[in-house]
Amino acid sequence: MTNLKVTVWNEYRHEKQNEHVASIYPEGIHNAIRGYLKTFDGFEVRTAVLDEPEHGLSDEVLNGTDVLIWWGHLAHSEVRDDIVEKVRARVLEGMGLIVLHSGNGSKIFESLLGTKTGSLKWRDDGEKERIWVIEHGHPITDGLGDYIEIPKEEMYGERFDIPAPDELIFISWFEGGEVFRSGCCYRRGKGKLFYFRPGHETFPIYHHPDVLKVIANGVRWAAPVQGASLSSGRVAPLELRN
Amino acid sequence: MTNLKVTVWNEYRHEKQNEHVASIYPEGIHNAIRGYLKTFDGFEVRTAVLDEPEHGLSDEVLNGTDVLIWWGHLAHSEVRDDIVEKVRARVLEGMGLIVLHSGNGSKIFESLLGTKTGSLKWRDDGEKERIWVIEHGHPITDGLGDYIEIPKEEMYGERFDIPAPDELIFISWFEGGEVFRSGCCYRRGKGKLFYFRPGHETFPIYHHPDVLKVIANGVRWAAPVQGASLSSGRVAPLELRN
Amino acid sequence: MTNLKVTVWNEYRHEKQNEHVASIYPEGIHNAIRGYLKTFDGFEVRTAVLDEPEHGLSDEVLNGTDVLIWWGHLAHSEVRDDIVEKVRARVLEGMGLIVLHSGNGSKIFESLLGTKTGSLKWRDDGEKERIWVIEHGHPITDGLGDYIEIPKEEMYGERFDIPAPDELIFISWFEGGEVFRSGCCYRRGKGKLFYFRPGHETFPIYHHPDVLKVIANGVRWAAPVQGASLSSGRVAPLELRN
Amino acid sequence: MTNLKVTVWNEYRHEKQNEHVASIYPEGIHNAIRGYLKTFDGFEVRTAVLDEPEHGLSDEVLNGTDVLIWWGHLAHSEVRDDIVEKVRARVLEGMGLIVLHSGNGSKIFESLLGTKTGSLKWRDDGEKERIWVIEHGHPITDGLGDYIEIPKEEMYGERFDIPAPDELIFISWFEGGEVFRSGCCYRRGKGKLFYFRPGHETFPIYHHPDVLKVIANGVRWAAPVQGASLSSGRVAPLELRN
Repeated sequence: MTNLKVTVWNEYRHEKQNEHVASIYPEGIHNAIRGYLKTFDGFEVRTAVLDEPEHGLSDEVLNGTDVLIWWGHLAHSEVRDDIVEKVRARVLEGMGLIVLHSGNGSKIFESLLGTKTGSLKWRDDGEKERIWVIEHGHPITDGLGDYIEIPKEEMYGERFDIPAPDELIFISWFEGGEVFRSGCCYRRGKGKLFYFRPGHETFPIYHHPDVLKVIANGVRWAAPVQGASLSSGRVAPLELRN
Repeated sequence: MTNLKVTVWNEYRHEKQNEHVASIYPEGIHNAIRGYLKTFDGFEVRTAVLDEPEHGLSDEVLNGTDVLIWWGHLAHSEVRDDIVEKVRARVLEGMGLIVLHSGNGSKIFESLLGTKTGSLKWRDDGEKERIWVIEHGHPITDGLGDYIEIPKEEMYGERFDIPAPDELIFISWFEGGEVFRSGCCYRRGKGKLFYFRPGHETFPIYHHPDVLKVIANGVRWAAPVQGASLSSGRVAPLELRN
Repeated sequence: MTNLKVTVWNEYRHEKQNEHVASIYPEGIHNAIRGYLKTFDGFEVRTAVLDEPEHGLSDEVLNGTDVLIWWGHLAHSEVRDDIVEKVRARVLEGMGLIVLHSGNGSKIFESLLGTKTGSLKWRDDGEKERIWVIEHGHPITDGLGDYIEIPKEEMYGERFDIPAPDELIFISWFEGGEVFRSGCCYRRGKGKLFYFRPGHETFPIYHHPDVLKVIANGVRWAAPVQGASLSSGRVAPLELRN
Repeated sequence: MTNLKVTVWNEYRHEKQNEHVASIYPEGIHNAIRGYLKTFDGFEVRTAVLDEPEHGLSDEVLNGTDVLIWWGHLAHSEVRDDIVEKVRARVLEGMGLIVLHSGNGSKIFESLLGTKTGSLKWRDDGEKERIWVIEHGHPITDGLGDYIEIPKEEMYGERFDIPAPDELIFISWFEGGEVFRSGCCYRRGKGKLFYFRPGHETFPIYHHPDVLKVIANGVRWAAPVQGASLSSGRVAPLELRN
């Protein structure tokens, strides 16, 4: 089996602008995630960030990526439309996409789902989140217990403006009284898309063992499948007329 | 427009065995719901209970019912299999079915969904429930705010062993830390099925205005649609062979 | 009950450029559909076409539209992006949208679904189509038989690059050997979206009684629902901290 | 990786009663499928038939089965209810189930789906079937082209009385004018269920390379996933009261 090629994309601004965030993620959120994924055989992991040329997502990188992980927040609007369109095309051709936390407001997530995915309730008071598993037989939940508990998180609350997920695998409970669809799987074109909610930059979420486990499971789940060949456009009839 | 014929079915045992329940529902849960539905034009509402002959669900009653509301808890096993099968057949032919609270463990709910629908977490400590609206454009949520709050309820927690709903319209938050898919819509055969979670017998849930509103909305949503005609069995080809 | 306000949008180019099309639709496809819908009480129907200012879709028109019907083909690229964005916003707020036939390639359809909805197989040889009803209890199929037969149609064949529909209600059989998901229902934001396949401009499809019946049923199904009120953004906690 | 344990269950009556069927499947349909699956590393395949004690499905066999393949037709009613219930429980615990062709009318299929799954149109005239791939990125379609063509088959036509599949991956075209949802994936409890239509006993369907490929892909797809641990029943609150 060949290695799965993973690219972890990060906006990488908070870490450079905010000392507290930098203390949690000294090499950036992308490298925290990459560091974990590298502990497994079978993943080949690189990173890309907003301020690199082409946001680090050249054709060569994109064509060499099986699964793309996306974290953004402050600077969604700075992501170039032509690159968003290339990412979208790659997903429809089969590349997996994992969108984390505030990536819900990214252009790529909105363009693939069609709704105002940035719309939700929020509150960054550092409250408890309990992420309940809804589909216990789903590969993304492999190795978890009944729930994941995160002591301090930003709250996201419904209504989250997404199309009903093809598979809803996690629902979050928040101390302040809200709920959220925190694990949402979609199939679009030949590609698979997984939205996973946790991850505020001011908390050490990407050091939490269960959060990292879900991301690794998500990468495996979102990996491209060869599938069937596909043609389109004008075609001759397969049957003769009566 | 002709009236919608609604039958409210209740096991009707708690109310006769427990003074506290009787004080909340002196004429039974079925009559509390019937009393509310009767305040609207367009509903024609009768009741049926377990201890009547054929559980009050004769062929005549079932054939004259557009939407059946079901509340059961203690005595699921006493419901006759042949009557469950008749109810199931009527749903597949187009009768709406609204299953309330502990009706999740009923034979009719399990037979239509196929999973062990009685399986969930629970705790009857009388804690706060907040039922969040997930689909704001759905007719069953008509006239609600962002959520329904119930001061004291029995908790039901995930994982609830149901097939993923065709439409998930409510998710509950519980004070004790759990979440639950509390409003689940299904289409089975020509019929529509709505599961609505609130309703423990020891609390005055069926006097709560928003809970009652949802039940009335659910009845309207689940009403039969004439739809298309349907045939099955051996058929002659529609096309000549080449 | 107030009237349902319907706007029928047509690109309206084929009818002006091609005598054969003009002979079938002397006043345009939009007026053929409008003429039918006007025969019912309860619909208030206007039309809008590409070459009008703002494509006939001013804010006033859009805000006064409950359900928008869309037919386009040659000139998808001429539709202004800002107007597409306004239509999309209105759908997410609750306006119904019915996309007909080659409208599958329109900007509005693609922007709401996120996939390359223009991708499919096709052949305009005028072959027989048989549209089978898949969900007989669905209101859009009201009054139909087991199938609709159209003697001469353009073929559209799978794979159609759409997200799996929330409800699949029609599948087409074509004489030349293909199949197609011809009736697809989606819920996006507070709005409902119905794609209905038949309708090539060189055949009198919008004079076919069953096709027209489905369009009228679709308008009723897609009508806005008041639903629940909705808030988003930063919110205070509903619960006190422990 | 440990081997996947597959049990191929066959009613095994046609082959013993009909010379023509016996000439196509001299050792039974079960052994035709087993013979193919055995050509792969990673599958450990046994068979079970109706007329064995406990229909060959003892607790030991069921508990040692990862994926069960089911073919039945004449004798659905002879399958013991207690064994159906055991199979259903195993599926909900995670065992994969692949139901072939006329298995649509089996007790196990109906009990897991809840609708009258035996209801469809049919005609056994030996006509052409073309099975179109609808989801090209799905692992069950791996290695296929745009469609599978079968020169002579029994026709099954819609409306097929099933719940809308969680994933619809194949749609069939029939020479006589019908269509059918031929590849339907469901998730029930922790288990996965795949219905695959082709397979009439009087034609050599289970010698067709693409049909066999789909069955092998289906077995891999339906394999159990460890997933998350699960608890149910009365639970103590996770949060202290305010």
